[in-house]
Amino acid sequence: MLYHDYPGQECSIASSLEIVGERWSLLIIRDIFRGRRRFDQIQKSLGIARNVLTARLNRMFDAGILEKKAYQSNPERYEYFLTQKGLDLWPVLMAFLGWGDKYCAPEEGVPRLIVHKECGGEIDDRRICMKCGKHLEVREAESIPGHVEHEQAPEASAASPAPQKSR
Amino acid sequence: MLYHDYPGQECSIASSLEIVGERWSLLIIRDIFRGRRRFDQIQKSLGIARNVLTARLNRMFDAGILEKKAYQSNPERYEYFLTQKGLDLWPVLMAFLGWGDKYCAPEEGVPRLIVHKECGGEIDDRRICMKCGKHLEVREAESIPGHVEHEQAPEASAASPAPQKSR
Repeated sequence: MLYHDYPGQECSIASSLEIVGERWSLLIIRDIFRGRRRFDQIQKSLGIARNVLTARLNRMFDAGILEKKAYQSNPERYEYFLTQKGLDLWPVLMAFLGWGDKYCAPEEGVPRLIVHKECGGEIDDRRICMKCGKHLEVREAESIPGHVEHEQAPEASAASPAPQKSR
Repeated sequence: MLYHDYPGQECSIASSLEIVGERWSLLIIRDIFRGRRRFDQIQKSLGIARNVLTARLNRMFDAGILEKKAYQSNPERYEYFLTQKGLDLWPVLMAFLGWGDKYCAPEEGVPRLIVHKECGGEIDDRRICMKCGKHLEVREAESIPGHVEHEQAPEASAASPAPQKSR
């Protein structure tokens, strides 16, 4: 637990990090943004231990970031969706994406591009379309392959852009 | 380690999180943004174990996010500063702040406000001044107490806004 020596002060960053402040939670959220909704898809994508994934999904469900819908019974299996609270983490992901693109991207170029669905323009680090100038919300953007040339993996289609469905 | 089954794909978020993807690192960066530059200041502010703080500071120094300057010798003691790479994490902190203000702030109001130094306008979640419309960079913004009424702690001055010095 954090040591709050100044009660009421500057807790919004800390409070957010209490919920999503470690790598797995944000990568799980990223995967769900990208359309990986099922436990096994996420588990395979991240290589995360199953018990850790279960714990993270449950925590984010309890925190109101995720909701789940059964897609199979006996045994019961769920797909995970982002609530509005979860969708509102898009700026956090975009901020990490921008920083990673600047400092961690391979020399060949950035792995993914986020573009404005309507006009295809690239999005800047304020989530503004650089082509038409629109201030974008999460559902107006999509992720497409970036400038990196690489061989298509057999299952790469699972990683193709999957816009968040309206619910 | 992450299991990269699609080499070259979508690694910028993951790469960022490899470096700063847990709570302590970002809270340490937040503290340095706020002018807490010394080990003991940060340690007291966060209540973090000293060995963990040492490890995080060293990792961020190695990653080029922090630089340090001795302010005392025998024993040698350092102050920590953000490099440009570190300053560029401001959008990440701002994104967490916005989300935390929306979903985790106490009923009395948000703990801190980020404002445009020049005109005093509040900043929106795209880091745009809501008063004058300027697209702000980190050095043009400052953190001031928010709408929460609370008793001033004896050492609260240590938590007052401290703009990042130019180096």
